[in-house]
Amino acid sequence: MNAAVGLDDPAYRAAAVDLLGVLAYGELSAFHRLASDAALAPTISDQAALAAMAVAEFRHFVRLRDRLADLGVDPEGAMRPFVASIDGFHESTAPSDWLEGLMKAYVGDGVGADFYREVARVLDPETQALVLDVMADTGHSAFVVATIRDAIAEDPRVAGRLALWGRRLVGEMLSQAQRVAAERDGLSALLVGDVAGGGALPGFDLAEIGRMLARLTEAHTRRMQALGLSA
Amino acid sequence: MNAAVGLDDPAYRAAAVDLLGVLAYGELSAFHRLASDAALAPTISDQAALAAMAVAEFRHFVRLRDRLADLGVDPEGAMRPFVASIDGFHESTAPSDWLEGLMKAYVGDGVGADFYREVARVLDPETQALVLDVMADTGHSAFVVATIRDAIAEDPRVAGRLALWGRRLVGEMLSQAQRVAAERDGLSALLVGDVAGGGALPGFDLAEIGRMLARLTEAHTRRMQALGLSA
Repeated sequence: MNAAVGLDDPAYRAAAVDLLGVLAYGELSAFHRLASDAALAPTISDQAALAAMAVAEFRHFVRLRDRLADLGVDPEGAMRPFVASIDGFHESTAPSDWLEGLMKAYVGDGVGADFYREVARVLDPETQALVLDVMADTGHSAFVVATIRDAIAEDPRVAGRLALWGRRLVGEMLSQAQRVAAERDGLSALLVGDVAGGGALPGFDLAEIGRMLARLTEAHTRRMQALGLSA
Repeated sequence: MNAAVGLDDPAYRAAAVDLLGVLAYGELSAFHRLASDAALAPTISDQAALAAMAVAEFRHFVRLRDRLADLGVDPEGAMRPFVASIDGFHESTAPSDWLEGLMKAYVGDGVGADFYREVARVLDPETQALVLDVMADTGHSAFVVATIRDAIAEDPRVAGRLALWGRRLVGEMLSQAQRVAAERDGLSALLVGDVAGGGALPGFDLAEIGRMLARLTEAHTRRMQALGLSA
């Protein structure tokens, strides 16, 4: 990004606070949902594996929340605008069994990491370092991939159902993301890199958001193919 | 304990594995229940505070599970005998609101720590060190005490309801503990210290278990009084 634009620019700062807020609440609610979905696990070890993913999300939450506090921002206030969208996503995608829960963890982890990577490019160095560092602490998905592949090998009909579920998950995720972007102009401008362009926030560019979402969707498709699923 | 009795004594070893199994599953299920109960929180910060308690329980679980694996024991098999009792406890004590959830976290944390302290006295040095170390990582309850005191100050009628709930929680906990003790002779003998007596496991002594449970109940009563509640 343009080195001239940083946290001393009020528009950039507001957008960065929005971003940290949405990521923080996203991580906290991922923690709760994964911890609840772990109740669907067939064995105690599976339950513990999903719980470990949940705990990793909580660690991410703590770092993002602490960054907000360091910036002198009330974390609660920064997160609140995103509660309805994120809770809405989880309510509309409650898994009905263990494999759907695993798929949700896998898709969420993957799309989340891609989104962090996209957004890191347009951040000031300090916030960028935090976001990249938080993102690096994933990689719990090897367990998910192995378990889903085993389930498909055992009963090939599972593949069709999970492919459908994967499409539904990413569709709901994108529709909530579009909603957030439409409501938060500063955040959208930050995401498409307009802040870096000239130090001003020229407003909400739907086309640019669309292209970023297309990249996220393509990466999702490759991950589904890696599972042997059509996306 | 008698230095002559250790993990090379098959009866002691079986009892120690039972103990690590019940503690491990207790921690894992405490993690899940606290993470779920956090959904009842009135603010995101309160939700995060309960989530942090849940994450601490998960850390305990990991250490106990890893200890079982180090002993060459399948952790899943060691935990399975205790799933019905512990799940039964949680099902019969699902909190109906945020304050009940907090009370459950506080009572569970307190009674749990006391139980760890009781049981540590009769363990071999290595297992003892682990149990004491896991126990030392609590102390999240300051947040709970402050929140419950505030709620009572705001509406004194809350005190009666929470006192009743506290009695119910500890009653259910003791009744499940009695059930576990009755089913697992080796574990009971370990708990009452008979292993230390002569290297043999003379069987299940209900009177001794009763005295330990009385000590746990007295400590619980003092904690309720510290909250301004009758126990």
